[in-house]
Amino acid sequence: MADRKKLVIGLFGFGTVGKALYNLLETTRPDGVRIKRICVRDISKNRGIEADFTDNYDSIFNDPEINLIVELVDDARASYAIITRALREGMSAVSGNKKMLAEHLPELIEMQKQTGSTLLYDASACGSIPVIRNLEEYYDNELLVSVKGILNGSSNYILTKIFNHGMTYEAALREAQEAGFAESDPSLDVDGWDSLSKLIIITVHAFGTYIAPENIFTFGISNLRDYDIRFAREKGRRIKLVGHVEKLADGRLVACVIPQLLSKNKYIYGVDDEFNGVVIKGLYYDKQFMFGRGAGGFPTGSAILSDITACQYDYKYEYKKRLTHLNDLPEFTNDVHFRVFFRYRNPEDLNLIEFDSISEKYSSADFNYVVGHTSLADLHRVAALMRDRDVFIAAYPPD
Amino acid sequence: MADRKKLVIGLFGFGTVGKALYNLLETTRPDGVRIKRICVRDISKNRGIEADFTDNYDSIFNDPEINLIVELVDDARASYAIITRALREGMSAVSGNKKMLAEHLPELIEMQKQTGSTLLYDASACGSIPVIRNLEEYYDNELLVSVKGILNGSSNYILTKIFNHGMTYEAALREAQEAGFAESDPSLDVDGWDSLSKLIIITVHAFGTYIAPENIFTFGISNLRDYDIRFAREKGRRIKLVGHVEKLADGRLVACVIPQLLSKNKYIYGVDDEFNGVVIKGLYYDKQFMFGRGAGGFPTGSAILSDITACQYDYKYEYKKRLTHLNDLPEFTNDVHFRVFFRYRNPEDLNLIEFDSISEKYSSADFNYVVGHTSLADLHRVAALMRDRDVFIAAYPPD
Repeated sequence: MADRKKLVIGLFGFGTVGKALYNLLETTRPDGVRIKRICVRDISKNRGIEADFTDNYDSIFNDPEINLIVELVDDARASYAIITRALREGMSAVSGNKKMLAEHLPELIEMQKQTGSTLLYDASACGSIPVIRNLEEYYDNELLVSVKGILNGSSNYILTKIFNHGMTYEAALREAQEAGFAESDPSLDVDGWDSLSKLIIITVHAFGTYIAPENIFTFGISNLRDYDIRFAREKGRRIKLVGHVEKLADGRLVACVIPQLLSKNKYIYGVDDEFNGVVIKGLYYDKQFMFGRGAGGFPTGSAILSDITACQYDYKYEYKKRLTHLNDLPEFTNDVHFRVFFRYRNPEDLNLIEFDSISEKYSSADFNYVVGHTSLADLHRVAALMRDRDVFIAAYPPD
Repeated sequence: MADRKKLVIGLFGFGTVGKALYNLLETTRPDGVRIKRICVRDISKNRGIEADFTDNYDSIFNDPEINLIVELVDDARASYAIITRALREGMSAVSGNKKMLAEHLPELIEMQKQTGSTLLYDASACGSIPVIRNLEEYYDNELLVSVKGILNGSSNYILTKIFNHGMTYEAALREAQEAGFAESDPSLDVDGWDSLSKLIIITVHAFGTYIAPENIFTFGISNLRDYDIRFAREKGRRIKLVGHVEKLADGRLVACVIPQLLSKNKYIYGVDDEFNGVVIKGLYYDKQFMFGRGAGGFPTGSAILSDITACQYDYKYEYKKRLTHLNDLPEFTNDVHFRVFFRYRNPEDLNLIEFDSISEKYSSADFNYVVGHTSLADLHRVAALMRDRDVFIAAYPPD
């Protein structure tokens, strides 16, 4: 029944996750898995371990013994080059680069179909929580309504320090970076780009539909100011950065990454620190909640290790929801209206957004805010403008 | 890539879950799945639907068109007869009978190996939470430390009514039965037997080891009295019925079903009503938490439907952890010591348990209790005696 394939790994990248994976393999020594060679940018650096380092892609791809590429590089373009080469050459591959995956998934799915090679990337969405495999294997399309969650550990760590420990945004960001939770470019975390990539990957496995990054409204927490924190506290809520995809009653999909003012009765309200939490909602099973560490070397490294073990058993994503419905996949729309909290400094910035209706309005010398209904399409239109100004927006769902 | 097999189902049992499954299939009409015939005990009963009912097993097994047996009967012996016949005849089968599975898993695994037929039962452990498939597919043996959770929805519903709504045990039990959450025999829920069955199934998929039901200490909540509730409240804790399996540092497994006095900082403290919650702990990813509806027709019916869909794609449990380690599976032990709260009416009942040490002792005309350390082996020895007397025991972990 269970027959383990021998895997000889060519590893690309030796940052936090690469090192953690290396240590995990040293400690657990799983049967039939070993790293043969590690490709790094700077081969002269002393890494304190006895391993075969190279800076030459070919010395990995041309080694006939190596049959699995594990790619843990930071740079999306390098990641794309490595993964597509692996797939073209019929090798199995494991990737941890969400940005690359989010940009190229349809092509990578097509390549797997044509070459018969395997690409796994469960570690890329929510670290140690097996979200992709569960969506892929367990949650049947017809019954799935929405997937929603805290997808980025480092921005959640920052928000937790602010809301549970009274820190300022700046101090909290510094602490997240020192704890090693932040990406090398903090904007990936705090501006929502990392959550966006994960949301795109999740959407493909949840509903089959691929939505290009530029079509999804994305707004992060880097514009968060004390006024916003105070507003949330006064309303008894916490702000969390949430990625959300939902099937509307008409069958269309809506998706966005936006700070949300969450009340206590929401599952993800209590997801703190660098943890991730995902709520999967179905027509009949109601809500399911999965929760685990979403950042850090070892949790992510052990998720990568699970992908590797899956390769030993020839596991593949089947992309059922996508491939069996390629001609009638749910369409994406930004045509949905909801309540938001919008804080702005310059009175003119209120004109950025077209409100259907406004139910609260506050003005002062320091700052102004409104609570009102608007559409996601309208927000998406002005997302870049909003990022550049001293304004903050959050979804503000009713209690 | 993804090719859906056509499934023609012979359904056994038309209780709450059977009916829910029938309605789910009527509503969602998944491609290539239909129920052809339904076998029930009493064919004369008017069920208000147009379907081909029979009370004759043969009319299902002898129908050459039927290629999947879905068995949702209450009676473990009938379940065993149906499932073993299906496997022997090379048919795929889905079972929801935890008791039968817990009693016969090693034999059923062996039968699948020999006949090449498939048996799926994700719905049997924790309803809509895909615990088994996650343990099977994702959590690698070497890294897994423990699985622990609230595995029975109806006893948890009762405990929630008691602790969050101040109900008495009796009133809460009545309400659970009226809400349709309780098994036909409430002792299965409240005495921990249902949790025990699920724990055994989970253990096989988590660690490979099969532990027979009679070897696992099992104590439920039917002896719970107001004194116990008061004690928990005074200590700022809630009582939950917890199934727990853990790999000790020496590699041996310990498992039990026991009420626990839980403090607020535990994930499962907040799992309320009929929900189930499972915490999976690994060496490197720390803790993961899965949460969802664990009882009720539709959540369980949709879990059964996921098993059916999995059959369409020829999914099988690989039983990796068991089959690749059959000769060196972790051994089971009850040789573990921990702190308990033990409440008793008759002073002599204190002699039931051998305590290593006692740290608190309370006596009054109405009731007595001690807090002390004892061994699971010792508790297991007197489990049946304890059930028959007016005593209550709960694990009482340090803060």
